[in-house]
Amino acid sequence: VKSITVGGYLLTRLEQLGVKSMFGLPGDFNLGFLDLVEDHPDIDWVGNCNELNAGYAADGYARLKEGSLGVITTTFGVGELSAMNGIAGAFSEMVPVLHIVGVPSTVQQKTKPLLHHTLGDGRFDAYRQASTQFTIFDAALMSKTDAGQLIDQAITQCIQKARPVYLMLPTDMVLQEISSERLQIPLSNAPPPNAPAKEEFVIETIHERVKEADGDVVVLVDACVIRHGVRKEVKEFLKETGFPVYATPMGKTAVDENYNRYGGIYVGSLTHPTIKEKVENANLIISIGSLGTDFNTGNFSYNIPTRRHIELHSNYTQVQYARFDDIGMKQLLPKLTERLQSFHSVASKIEVPPFIKQLPKEESTVISHLWFWPRLGYFFKQRDVIVTETGTANFGILDVPLPADSILVSQVLWGSIGWSVGSCLGAALAAREKQLGRVILFVGDGSLQLTVQEIAVMIRKGLKPIIFVLNNKGYTIEKMIHGKYRKYNNISDWKWSALLDTLNDGGKFDTASYTVTTKRELSDLLDDSSFASADKIQLVEVLMEALDAPQALVRQAELTGKGNKY
Amino acid sequence: VKSITVGGYLLTRLEQLGVKSMFGLPGDFNLGFLDLVEDHPDIDWVGNCNELNAGYAADGYARLKEGSLGVITTTFGVGELSAMNGIAGAFSEMVPVLHIVGVPSTVQQKTKPLLHHTLGDGRFDAYRQASTQFTIFDAALMSKTDAGQLIDQAITQCIQKARPVYLMLPTDMVLQEISSERLQIPLSNAPPPNAPAKEEFVIETIHERVKEADGDVVVLVDACVIRHGVRKEVKEFLKETGFPVYATPMGKTAVDENYNRYGGIYVGSLTHPTIKEKVENANLIISIGSLGTDFNTGNFSYNIPTRRHIELHSNYTQVQYARFDDIGMKQLLPKLTERLQSFHSVASKIEVPPFIKQLPKEESTVISHLWFWPRLGYFFKQRDVIVTETGTANFGILDVPLPADSILVSQVLWGSIGWSVGSCLGAALAAREKQLGRVILFVGDGSLQLTVQEIAVMIRKGLKPIIFVLNNKGYTIEKMIHGKYRKYNNISDWKWSALLDTLNDGGKFDTASYTVTTKRELSDLLDDSSFASADKIQLVEVLMEALDAPQALVRQAELTGKGNKY
Ligand SMILES: Cc1ncc(C[n+]2csc(CCOP(=O)(O)OP(=O)(O)O)c2C)c(N)n1
Ligand SMILES: Cc1ncc(C[n+]2csc(CCOP(=O)(O)OP(=O)(O)O)c2C)c(N)n1
Ligand SMILES: [Mg+2]
Ligand SMILES: [Mg+2]
Repeated sequence: VKSITVGGYLLTRLEQLGVKSMFGLPGDFNLGFLDLVEDHPDIDWVGNCNELNAGYAADGYARLKEGSLGVITTTFGVGELSAMNGIAGAFSEMVPVLHIVGVPSTVQQKTKPLLHHTLGDGRFDAYRQASTQFTIFDAALMSKTDAGQLIDQAITQCIQKARPVYLMLPTDMVLQEISSERLQIPLSNAPPPNAPAKEEFVIETIHERVKEADGDVVVLVDACVIRHGVRKEVKEFLKETGFPVYATPMGKTAVDENYNRYGGIYVGSLTHPTIKEKVENANLIISIGSLGTDFNTGNFSYNIPTRRHIELHSNYTQVQYARFDDIGMKQLLPKLTERLQSFHSVASKIEVPPFIKQLPKEESTVISHLWFWPRLGYFFKQRDVIVTETGTANFGILDVPLPADSILVSQVLWGSIGWSVGSCLGAALAAREKQLGRVILFVGDGSLQLTVQEIAVMIRKGLKPIIFVLNNKGYTIEKMIHGKYRKYNNISDWKWSALLDTLNDGGKFDTASYTVTTKRELSDLLDDSSFASADKIQLVEVLMEALDAPQALVRQAELTGKGNKY
Repeated sequence: VKSITVGGYLLTRLEQLGVKSMFGLPGDFNLGFLDLVEDHPDIDWVGNCNELNAGYAADGYARLKEGSLGVITTTFGVGELSAMNGIAGAFSEMVPVLHIVGVPSTVQQKTKPLLHHTLGDGRFDAYRQASTQFTIFDAALMSKTDAGQLIDQAITQCIQKARPVYLMLPTDMVLQEISSERLQIPLSNAPPPNAPAKEEFVIETIHERVKEADGDVVVLVDACVIRHGVRKEVKEFLKETGFPVYATPMGKTAVDENYNRYGGIYVGSLTHPTIKEKVENANLIISIGSLGTDFNTGNFSYNIPTRRHIELHSNYTQVQYARFDDIGMKQLLPKLTERLQSFHSVASKIEVPPFIKQLPKEESTVISHLWFWPRLGYFFKQRDVIVTETGTANFGILDVPLPADSILVSQVLWGSIGWSVGSCLGAALAAREKQLGRVILFVGDGSLQLTVQEIAVMIRKGLKPIIFVLNNKGYTIEKMIHGKYRKYNNISDWKWSALLDTLNDGGKFDTASYTVTTKRELSDLLDDSSFASADKIQLVEVLMEALDAPQALVRQAELTGKGNKY
């Protein structure tokens, strides 16, 4: 077998998994590795503006490239630590991100000279130590002997568990030659198989429960359907069984929202009464991939007793009070589909309220959230990729039915503001690679200020997202929680319409910016086919009132405020 | 004694130490505390654009407010982790920064619900765990009983050791009432006293060595003179003894550069030959506050044998091969001054080469580094605060003699790019509080892209720095190290002259932007008294060649490259 450099080995593994874009910034300790990236015929180096944004971008990229992963490369200390919040977010939200850190040579790792980017006290392992809190695997490639094996282990952990991993690559290891033999066996993200007898037992138990329930079952899809790649299995399950299905906020678009057995969003006590009744009154509720976080459950207000609840997870199954470890949904679902399809005739008669949203009639010309989101509902198209930010946007989008094959990307659990901008960059690159449709970002004025520079990278990469900036002059979501009239919740009012022009790469790219202040102006713009075609990068500043917010947010904020009284 | 809220106690301590500006961003878990900050009559809340920038700002603020500290407040998880690189930098560079993190209530800390901003697995202590790598003290204020004491301990550690500390403030603790009694005893940054007999011995030993050296002594001032607040003691020492003095890169401006016994910068093998000879040939070299990092020592190329070397540090003293623990320079210096002043007549005859820099004659109109930095030398004034970024700027500034009472702020050890922008914000606020002179920032185009939004905060706060953007279309310093013609070292070419306008707060502030492409244009601008008066925020884009760099950088880069061969 031929030999290959350690850096080359790593890139070959990534290429095999379909990685076509890599994120990060150069630094003194990763330049040699970047030579290999730049020279790689199938991988494009996306130089980001800063490392946190690069982390967000890798996250957004990974979310769209199902079965693959996002990769960020940084430099020792200063670079890697800047990305830490991005990595922690990928951990929290279960996104497979590989963090490659270029570090001083293996010799320097041992002699520990007082190099720049060190803490000045010889602790060369401090950054790695910190990062173990936010990764499921970490390794330093310190010798040729195990470099290939460690790389394989890191990547496998990353894609199987959908969590970040951390890899230290010393300068002098990049070009070391190792055997390429292992490369012939591709890495797999397949979870370990379920134990057959136990699985059989679980299937029978679930069948029993469904029978007892007379087939009156409601399915609730959640985040992990998307994160653990079982969209297809779930679709099949729903089709064959005919069960009605609802989604949580983090499960939105896990199932096509125009699927005729889909009824909309369930979020505990914040749910629309009709939906709430349908879900909570079913004889049996099967949750798939659920993630019971505060914002995803209406502040833990599910009204679903354990006796009527079955949960399918990536690595266990819960039937009422009984927990079955290591029975994962990926393999369970197809078998369950087979076993339960006999209920189709009964189940398909269960009524599902249509999930539609009508434009409210409002006298005022002001763009309200109540009007804005349903109006956008008419603008979205099949295969659109929609990215929303923490703030009013994440709540506003919930009520809008999204078209078939559209994808919603949001970060409801981690909720780090500014994330959507980096994530949109990564998502837009992935969308281009996968030939999806338009990429549409909804971001608050406050959030955008955290990570605004990454728009420059979108421009430079020739991406053409439509960026809606919700300008309500501050941190409205925070105002809803606490400090409605506080100065600390107000922000500087930028000239948003000048932004694309300022960040354009020597004016080389075509851009367009708009400011809309009335419903009419926005409607006209949305109806403009040239605008809607998204043939260049566009920014729309939407002026909204400082204290206007989607209803779901108003109610969630009250609950959050109560949990954190001062 | 009266009672006071925990939040109020904390703010009173900060106020006592002269903190007038606090940095950070609001978040769901710190809003109640921010109420107190906003209502405090003497403390101003500086809402930053993002947390990393806020960390940098607290660092820059602390550097100027000697004896005081910088304070950043963030929110649980998302906020605090974003600031991590800023905190680590403060650790590395020995800057006293207090990190206050608003966290979920004490009840939630125990019940660990699946809140947003958590990792989804109930590890509420993960962020604190990670941060212990970069702080010298951390505490969670979980009960009234010890809240006051923990706050005092945290702040004392911070200012005594000049390192970051970490404080978790749960929502429900902010308004708890505690006794205000402790507040009557002010906190002190005074280091513990030296043991008298041991100190006496050290002084005698040093006196012996100076006598043996026939008074032929050279003093080398370094970073810790500034960080550990002994500028005044050093000045006195130099005046009374008459010893010649030189500075390292990180010690620049520790001693007035126009002091007549000051000879310029010593940086090992990269030193100007005349200076190198003077320093290395002295019979005895006394280093004060030295920090032997790669960039600070010409890549460890000091030619000073231990036999001729004495080092005074904040917490130990080294005389040749002998180490004396716990003999700190703050108290040692005045006594040493007394003991060694008898050498004044001999020492004051030692010749010191004048530290001046003449404008080179160059045919070309292009702005070269060789010409740029000395030219700026004529522009600087007394009490100017000069902030320089990692990259060509940090090296270029070294050769320019700076005026009396001017302050240089740079981050040579940690070297995180983008730092200078946040740091400049903090420094400018401190400079305004202390009524210092102009604030002048030199930042590369690459570095500025990492943290550009913080300029908006400078504008909004009515600050008036002069910002020189060195536009050489990329990461020139990296090109010098590796990858001279690599794409990964190139960046997007923004419309820098439009930046201030775009980030202006609703156009409320007066701003001015300039682009200079020739020596003449720059000279004319610098000579323009209205420009030089810095009566509004100004940005100067300076066009430079992609592969031009200061000589010291070219040589340092070669050495760095050698240490990290691929
Ligand atoms: C990194 C980070 N810092 C701070 C917060 C706290 N936070 C949550 S939402 C928000 C305000 C968002 O404001 P904006 O984007 O303008 O949204 P909108 O006004 O539409 O609610 C803040 C400061 C956070 N979630 N993440
Ligand atoms: C946070 C961080 N990321 C990456 C680096 C690696 N790095 C050091 S200097 C530099 C380039 C700086 O470029 P610029 O500011 O344009 O300076 P110049 O071109 O004048 O050298 C980079 C990428 C770093 N030091 N810190
Ligand atoms: Mg807003
Ligand atoms: Mg540059």
